[in-house]
Amino acid sequence: MSELKIGLAGTGAIGRTHIDRINNRLRGGRVIGCADANADYGKAVAKQYGMKGYESPEAMINDPQIEAVIVTAADAWHAPYVLEAIRAGKPVFCEKPLSPTPALCREIVDAEIAGGKHLVQVGFMRRYDPGYVQLKNLIDSGKYGAPLVLHCCHHNYDDGGVGWKTRMSVENSMIHEIDVLRWLLGEDYKKVDVVCPRSSRHSGDCRDPQIMHLTTESGIYIEVESFIFSHHGYDVRCEVVCEEGILNLPEPPYAMIRANDARITPICHDWSERFPEAYNIELQNWIDASREGRVDGPAAWDGYVAQITAGCASEARDSGVSVDITIPEMPGFYKNA
Amino acid sequence: MSELKIGLAGTGAIGRTHIDRINNRLRGGRVIGCADANADYGKAVAKQYGMKGYESPEAMINDPQIEAVIVTAADAWHAPYVLEAIRAGKPVFCEKPLSPTPALCREIVDAEIAGGKHLVQVGFMRRYDPGYVQLKNLIDSGKYGAPLVLHCCHHNYDDGGVGWKTRMSVENSMIHEIDVLRWLLGEDYKKVDVVCPRSSRHSGDCRDPQIMHLTTESGIYIEVESFIFSHHGYDVRCEVVCEEGILNLPEPPYAMIRANDARITPICHDWSERFPEAYNIELQNWIDASREGRVDGPAAWDGYVAQITAGCASEARDSGVSVDITIPEMPGFYKNA
Amino acid sequence: MSELKIGLAGTGAIGRTHIDRINNRLRGGRVIGCADANADYGKAVAKQYGMKGYESPEAMINDPQIEAVIVTAADAWHAPYVLEAIRAGKPVFCEKPLSPTPALCREIVDAEIAGGKHLVQVGFMRRYDPGYVQLKNLIDSGKYGAPLVLHCCHHNYDDGGVGWKTRMSVENSMIHEIDVLRWLLGEDYKKVDVVCPRSSRHSGDCRDPQIMHLTTESGIYIEVESFIFSHHGYDVRCEVVCEEGILNLPEPPYAMIRANDARITPICHDWSERFPEAYNIELQNWIDASREGRVDGPAAWDGYVAQITAGCASEARDSGVSVDITIPEMPGFYKNA
Amino acid sequence: MSELKIGLAGTGAIGRTHIDRINNRLRGGRVIGCADANADYGKAVAKQYGMKGYESPEAMINDPQIEAVIVTAADAWHAPYVLEAIRAGKPVFCEKPLSPTPALCREIVDAEIAGGKHLVQVGFMRRYDPGYVQLKNLIDSGKYGAPLVLHCCHHNYDDGGVGWKTRMSVENSMIHEIDVLRWLLGEDYKKVDVVCPRSSRHSGDCRDPQIMHLTTESGIYIEVESFIFSHHGYDVRCEVVCEEGILNLPEPPYAMIRANDARITPICHDWSERFPEAYNIELQNWIDASREGRVDGPAAWDGYVAQITAGCASEARDSGVSVDITIPEMPGFYKNA
Repeated sequence: MSELKIGLAGTGAIGRTHIDRINNRLRGGRVIGCADANADYGKAVAKQYGMKGYESPEAMINDPQIEAVIVTAADAWHAPYVLEAIRAGKPVFCEKPLSPTPALCREIVDAEIAGGKHLVQVGFMRRYDPGYVQLKNLIDSGKYGAPLVLHCCHHNYDDGGVGWKTRMSVENSMIHEIDVLRWLLGEDYKKVDVVCPRSSRHSGDCRDPQIMHLTTESGIYIEVESFIFSHHGYDVRCEVVCEEGILNLPEPPYAMIRANDARITPICHDWSERFPEAYNIELQNWIDASREGRVDGPAAWDGYVAQITAGCASEARDSGVSVDITIPEMPGFYKNA
Repeated sequence: MSELKIGLAGTGAIGRTHIDRINNRLRGGRVIGCADANADYGKAVAKQYGMKGYESPEAMINDPQIEAVIVTAADAWHAPYVLEAIRAGKPVFCEKPLSPTPALCREIVDAEIAGGKHLVQVGFMRRYDPGYVQLKNLIDSGKYGAPLVLHCCHHNYDDGGVGWKTRMSVENSMIHEIDVLRWLLGEDYKKVDVVCPRSSRHSGDCRDPQIMHLTTESGIYIEVESFIFSHHGYDVRCEVVCEEGILNLPEPPYAMIRANDARITPICHDWSERFPEAYNIELQNWIDASREGRVDGPAAWDGYVAQITAGCASEARDSGVSVDITIPEMPGFYKNA
Repeated sequence: MSELKIGLAGTGAIGRTHIDRINNRLRGGRVIGCADANADYGKAVAKQYGMKGYESPEAMINDPQIEAVIVTAADAWHAPYVLEAIRAGKPVFCEKPLSPTPALCREIVDAEIAGGKHLVQVGFMRRYDPGYVQLKNLIDSGKYGAPLVLHCCHHNYDDGGVGWKTRMSVENSMIHEIDVLRWLLGEDYKKVDVVCPRSSRHSGDCRDPQIMHLTTESGIYIEVESFIFSHHGYDVRCEVVCEEGILNLPEPPYAMIRANDARITPICHDWSERFPEAYNIELQNWIDASREGRVDGPAAWDGYVAQITAGCASEARDSGVSVDITIPEMPGFYKNA
Repeated sequence: MSELKIGLAGTGAIGRTHIDRINNRLRGGRVIGCADANADYGKAVAKQYGMKGYESPEAMINDPQIEAVIVTAADAWHAPYVLEAIRAGKPVFCEKPLSPTPALCREIVDAEIAGGKHLVQVGFMRRYDPGYVQLKNLIDSGKYGAPLVLHCCHHNYDDGGVGWKTRMSVENSMIHEIDVLRWLLGEDYKKVDVVCPRSSRHSGDCRDPQIMHLTTESGIYIEVESFIFSHHGYDVRCEVVCEEGILNLPEPPYAMIRANDARITPICHDWSERFPEAYNIELQNWIDASREGRVDGPAAWDGYVAQITAGCASEARDSGVSVDITIPEMPGFYKNA
């Protein structure tokens, strides 16, 4: 079978990382063209990689040579490019969020259903992290009973200079937990509140840390702590308290050092060091499934549900009271997936 | 200096443990008499240990030979015996709770102030655990900035057959966290809620686990998970998220074993294995201070504040909404302590 | 650039694993043919994978379509196939050992030098394990001073039914440490002894465990414990005692579980679970370098030195006294590599 | 029962630590007098503690008021004072070594036997460390099969300015392992060698680290690494490889801290921080047993055997070859103990 010919829309840092990954390490696909809303920039990157450049992502998506699309543009461009790919009938991998606007997510869902073909995958890469997969297997084994409570944290050393805002802790950071825990537990959420404890002196104007509490349909209670300016490292933890055991996400495998009167094991400094294998597996699986006409990963529906939940969480944080989450009934189209 | 002559009121299991500890291992004190509300039982225990027996704890407290009193009776008897000791002008160590009833705690506080002499210590032994002391020293060093969030858990394997009730998770279990965290942070609480997630199938009629959220005066946010029927072991953890570091209560020092395709480190099965050194230090310090006419440990005021907080937590659990905690102003008598 | 067309000699279990890896996961190469000393077996495997079959590995190696060779045959066949590949002027990846016989290793070295082209890589995959790479980077950073002592262990749960013999602990198991520690430290060995402690009742007629002591040119002292019938799991550890710190090979990232009164972290049961990523990186690097006409990995020289060392270790074990190791001077051909 | 009246011979730092421990924390004994070879110094310390002073340790030992003796003098004085106590028929606790000279140890053994009364205990306090006791219980449980190999280390940050010499690594440091491992395994040693790897640049003229290999009667093989100028912390580790599991001495219980991109758990800086509880238990047990006319702890025989073994180890280090250890038959006097 020949390689999947991929076009990439949005040639920023993450996009270029995906190009390197697909063209130098993974198997079965090749990014052969790229484009950006800033046409000159997109063409410059295309030239640099020896690829085909285009006037616009839309033009690229509709190039008959392009068989599949990756969207790594700014969040606001996700929906338009994904919708264009659906119109073109091509598989599309869209970095999270599917769209910051739940209504646009719904539009994508409806377009995909109307098209009658599963085409959209959302870049919730944690589902592919071997650590989370271990947790899921342990839970699903039934050996430890039902999950009752989850304790999670998602810490950054700082905001890396991007100008963090209070709302981003839910929308850009804890959105990962919103998706991966829903997948881990196999349940939708029914209630959310967000508490803002005393802020760190490093957090500027942001409310930081923030603690999100989610309750699932069966009453599982989840605590997620986001701490962007934690000033200790990039750290993601997840503990699942079950009826007969407590399961912990593995720590990354770093060398332990005895020095300076201490046992010292590194923590990642930067998010980019934490889940490299998850990105590899995610994209390899997407390439493999796309070549066979399937979508195996997080679907447009998952992207939609995550944004509904995040919207409720933001509302809960702003209002200071808990918010009920109402998830529409899942269309049969996705149930069969 | 001669040994402190101690009388013990309430000759159940904990009382006898204290007798063994003081008479065989600690220095400077000796339990020379004991009594119980059940007079015959008290006298039988006295005989067994070769001690002086009494018709009643009150009679024992007023025996001129007795210089100091330990109260290990059933909770309802704590206040009467402590008040009797105050009337007798003798130092009294009372197991927690000082009294289940905040009003009776206040009566003790007022009686102690009226007597003009510091006499009462409450048995919150975790303040003496070397692990908590390490945490306190780390926080107080200022090296890691201000504490912002605490994550704590207090798990039992099961209820040991005592017939656990939903209310006991706050009143008998998390009461320890209520006191020790207040001491650790040096702040009173201003708000509490208690969430009941999905219960374990091992928890019978109890709501279990329960999660208590406390907010301190400065906005530190505390999560305490009580899980009585955890079916994994007796486990107490405490993690303090500070502005520049996260501090964890040490795990007990058990041998790590590689066997059966796993690295295995024991967890205590039973509460009695977890804090033996804390009990030793607590009682040694009480004996030392009593001989010098001081009370160095948790005072009647601390016992009172803990019961006010626990009362609010119980109310919050029953009502399902958060409850504001109003702590009366601390009398100058205790400020000077 | 088109894919590297690879022929595989020796179609047993490891060979088929390499086929799966290269053809389904790695990039830039494809196994297009295979052969076995047992011609029928080789052809059956070829048919199963839809590949070209051959009468013999030699025939395959000389097929002009084949651009590079992988040798995964039984140990005795390594030298003949590698020499055939050298004669054919094709890059060849040979699973360890290059040959069990040092003289045959030397013959390969001489043939490669005579051919004037770097062609041979030996399958010491631990050099590609991210954990060992971390150790090497930490040592090479100079931050912890010079290495002085190494403590290593290489444990199997049992022999997997292969019929282990005493000599195999050095030749088939600790041979990995012989190579990877030489690479880690950048020094040859000058002395070796092997001690046989009391054997386990599970070890049958084998001397097991065995402890090998290696001394390097600069006096670094290395202890390697091989324990084939350890009955606890497959476990590889490496601790490097330096002048200002002690460095430990990371443990594999498994979920930690609190259950049954213990904290439990899995250990691999089987060698195949321990270094999957190392195999991926090793073969990807071999494909990448082969396409560019280079050999970046362990060379024929390294394979030769490892077998000289293993031979001395076997002699030391049999004689019960330490043996001096004399490594011939490295030919300039390999110094330039 | 009245308190055991103790006299202490040798009023240096360790002696004064024992005084504090016995008089302020332990139960059932009291140091009431002390003396030193330097009479003025001994009397000054006596005055400082409000105790009886003496012209000499011998005078003190023979004071009828003194019921038991602790020897914390310089090593050379151990034998004379212990012999004096035996002559006086009084229980005597002697810090290790019983004597640096095996012949003097034997003289003590013979004197004790001649006196017909168990009087001597040697200060090998590690036998009382709860961690080693855990190890012993695990081994003795039989659950993990027979011990086959032990890996131990005994690291100091540096020599604390005492002017370390090469011979002291065996005689003053690894002497602890010599005793505690013999107790742990319940076997005498039959062979020893000592290897000196490349020395650290921090070790001055000393051979440091040193690695001692001991073989027991049943063939258990023991590796002990002494590294005095380790420049990483004071660290004692012990790993017991058994037929069905590997047992590790617990690490001391320190708070784990996440900070500076790392998980950090302190290691002791100084030996005095590592075994405080072992010293408490050791002396309490000695007091308890002495009051009842027993010696429960390490006997004169154990002190003698340790010095024979250390002597062989020193010889092995100096000669560079392994030395057979011949332990005389244990007198029936000690077998009955």
